[in-house]
Amino acid sequence: MPPIDDYLAANQQRFEQELFELLRLPSVSADPEFAPQVRAAAEWVAAQFRSFEFATEVIETAGFPLVFAQSPQVEGRPTALVYGHYDVQPPDPLEEWKSPPFEPTIRDGNIYARGATDDKGQMFTHIKSVEAWIKSVGELPLNIKFLIEGEEEVGSANLEKFLATHADKLACDCVVISDTSQYAPGVPAITYGLRGIIAFEVTFRGPSQDLHSGSFGGAVTNPANALCRVMATLHDEQHRVTIPTFYDDIVELTQDERAQFAALPYDEADFMRQLGVDGLRGEAGYSSLEQRWTRPTLDINGLTSGYQKPGPKTIIPAWARCKFSCRLVPNQDPAKITAAVKSYFQSRCPAGIQMEVHAFHGAPGVLVDPASPYITAAAKAIERGFGNRPVLIREGGSIPIVTHFQQVLGVDTLLLGWGLNDDNTHSPNEKFNLADFHRGIKASSYLWEELGRLEA
Amino acid sequence: MPPIDDYLAANQQRFEQELFELLRLPSVSADPEFAPQVRAAAEWVAAQFRSFEFATEVIETAGFPLVFAQSPQVEGRPTALVYGHYDVQPPDPLEEWKSPPFEPTIRDGNIYARGATDDKGQMFTHIKSVEAWIKSVGELPLNIKFLIEGEEEVGSANLEKFLATHADKLACDCVVISDTSQYAPGVPAITYGLRGIIAFEVTFRGPSQDLHSGSFGGAVTNPANALCRVMATLHDEQHRVTIPTFYDDIVELTQDERAQFAALPYDEADFMRQLGVDGLRGEAGYSSLEQRWTRPTLDINGLTSGYQKPGPKTIIPAWARCKFSCRLVPNQDPAKITAAVKSYFQSRCPAGIQMEVHAFHGAPGVLVDPASPYITAAAKAIERGFGNRPVLIREGGSIPIVTHFQQVLGVDTLLLGWGLNDDNTHSPNEKFNLADFHRGIKASSYLWEELGRLEA
Repeated sequence: MPPIDDYLAANQQRFEQELFELLRLPSVSADPEFAPQVRAAAEWVAAQFRSFEFATEVIETAGFPLVFAQSPQVEGRPTALVYGHYDVQPPDPLEEWKSPPFEPTIRDGNIYARGATDDKGQMFTHIKSVEAWIKSVGELPLNIKFLIEGEEEVGSANLEKFLATHADKLACDCVVISDTSQYAPGVPAITYGLRGIIAFEVTFRGPSQDLHSGSFGGAVTNPANALCRVMATLHDEQHRVTIPTFYDDIVELTQDERAQFAALPYDEADFMRQLGVDGLRGEAGYSSLEQRWTRPTLDINGLTSGYQKPGPKTIIPAWARCKFSCRLVPNQDPAKITAAVKSYFQSRCPAGIQMEVHAFHGAPGVLVDPASPYITAAAKAIERGFGNRPVLIREGGSIPIVTHFQQVLGVDTLLLGWGLNDDNTHSPNEKFNLADFHRGIKASSYLWEELGRLEA
Repeated sequence: MPPIDDYLAANQQRFEQELFELLRLPSVSADPEFAPQVRAAAEWVAAQFRSFEFATEVIETAGFPLVFAQSPQVEGRPTALVYGHYDVQPPDPLEEWKSPPFEPTIRDGNIYARGATDDKGQMFTHIKSVEAWIKSVGELPLNIKFLIEGEEEVGSANLEKFLATHADKLACDCVVISDTSQYAPGVPAITYGLRGIIAFEVTFRGPSQDLHSGSFGGAVTNPANALCRVMATLHDEQHRVTIPTFYDDIVELTQDERAQFAALPYDEADFMRQLGVDGLRGEAGYSSLEQRWTRPTLDINGLTSGYQKPGPKTIIPAWARCKFSCRLVPNQDPAKITAAVKSYFQSRCPAGIQMEVHAFHGAPGVLVDPASPYITAAAKAIERGFGNRPVLIREGGSIPIVTHFQQVLGVDTLLLGWGLNDDNTHSPNEKFNLADFHRGIKASSYLWEELGRLEA
């Protein structure tokens, strides 16, 4: 596509300058102090869409506004909905940044700034690719809607409410999100599966107050001992979760998937070095990538009981609490798993303990057919933009909004990550590779072409 | 003894006011923030002894000072050494106190305050009984030394060092300690056996920082899960401790002892109601009293790991920690048990975990011959002071210093408890019955008379 390629080449520097403008806005949604700058970021994004004459709205919510923009109608062509977010994580701890988080700085071919990759830099590639089509070709080869929110880093509660009542406005054939990572440098990836999640808090209450372990120890059920005793039974020797029915609904990996994952470059020694551990433990019969991407888990997230300060204190604590969560995989139903977990705990409640099991809000896993025409189209576009064919991967984390798009709009999401795993998202010295920024714009331009060829 | 009885009757209110003064000093030895108030309590106690012209010293140690005081020499009479402590347990959790821990408050005939019974209130009875003898009779019927320390609640390490080099200064015929309980209201007791103790802190370190449970969960050893897994193995189905050699050196109870304990009034439903539990769990084959007084234990005292605030946070915590302690019984050697515990944990350390097991200072259990003349004398004094003959019991708690007195001074200790089992020592709402405070002073006055009749 010579006109687009030429346009992108001619405008590289301006694209960087514009991204820097957006990165300079400290749009920290979690901190009320930054509220004016979060709003400024929304307006800045809206102005981008207006610059190429998309029908643009800044839609107020109970929190920060949604920016919605829509291309002129192209009859007979499919519609893509691009989702992204203009808000960022807090930059703390500030003292660990080598350059200030809101003064974007290029070092070693990377842009360093809060939001560089999560998600301003990645989201911006889709804005610039649309601009390139309109300013060089004159029109887009498909219909595009943009939905850019300002509360992703604080849970997207207002977007969820909006979705529930505006499915028509957002109607589309597929969603496009660039808020994930390549598999490795030079190995672009399409993420076709995500794990779901369900989180719990269980409290064991024993004596009505802490007891002297000398006067009472030996005759009283100790809630902390009892809690450990139950938590310990949740995995067997193969490190499989023992809760009845836990694995019932899982669709096993295909031989193709296993072969694809096995072919990915992976160095276990490197992985252990990265984590700072000298050994690993996971479900028997699955590789490390399979364990992290495709198998459900039950991990303790927090333990609280009794005396926690320095030195000894010889009490029988009145209560003990465990926060834990299960990563779920596609086809596991959070409601069924919640019921199974609760029933398991109730069946194990020992004498002398009052047990409370609370389940927080959960989300199921996501799986897109890796052979879908949308994924095939995206793979072609990425190969053209990055020069390498993308690998098909899954990710172990959860992106609840993807589930909501599936449930409310009935469409799949293309998770096209331009970032890298070591981009320090949510950490000091967040970065985005400058070359990947431009490759992302290129791949996005080709994506519109490839998707435009599909049936509406 | 009319002059003493009259003196006690005339000074009741002042005794209470003085005890309140002492209870208002937050002498929490475990928390460095309270160091000045711990020292203030030492000075306050020393001033008491000086008020009736005992030779008084405030002896500096590497930690908090010892208060040592000595009566004028009475030739040909035995010497009693009264031991007590002016430090107290931390008051946490503060929000559970009905009245502030360091504002002594009388409700329903009880004094509520941290230290009310453990040990300020009980210790103070012996100071006031000595004052009564000196201010009314003019002299004591025996020699008395006082040794009041400020580090009992943190292990008495500096007192132990002092003991090792000052046996001469502390030479005596018997030690008197009131830091235990009556068997029940109206059933005073002499305690002839105590459990020992050894406390531990075990830390499981996994990844070098908290990990995203989505990206990594399933492949990484979770330190909190791993810790629960090991802690859960420490008891078998009979609730016996599984650590090898743990029970090897225990001397089983005699039939007489079991019969005596069985004859004591005991209502299991009441006991459960007192604790606020609907069931009990202890070592199979032993009664509840036997479990608490004469069998060793392993109780978790505290659990700490990961996220502990409200709501979920889906991390794999970098580390998990458990504080736990074993109550030991006479003839179990703390050093041997420590070695067995450490070796057990090391043998169970899973892949991916760096384990640290720290043992705090321990103490063996204590057993005194229940037919000794000192116990007989004390029984008479208590019967006179409380109006009921005391029963001979053991207690589940540990008073390590009793072992040291036995080892260094070669004497037995009279454990004369004026408290009650539900006094909430080490817990919120610690209390001391006001009538027992005064009965304790009375019994202590008679004790000096009874002990004074024995051979020096």
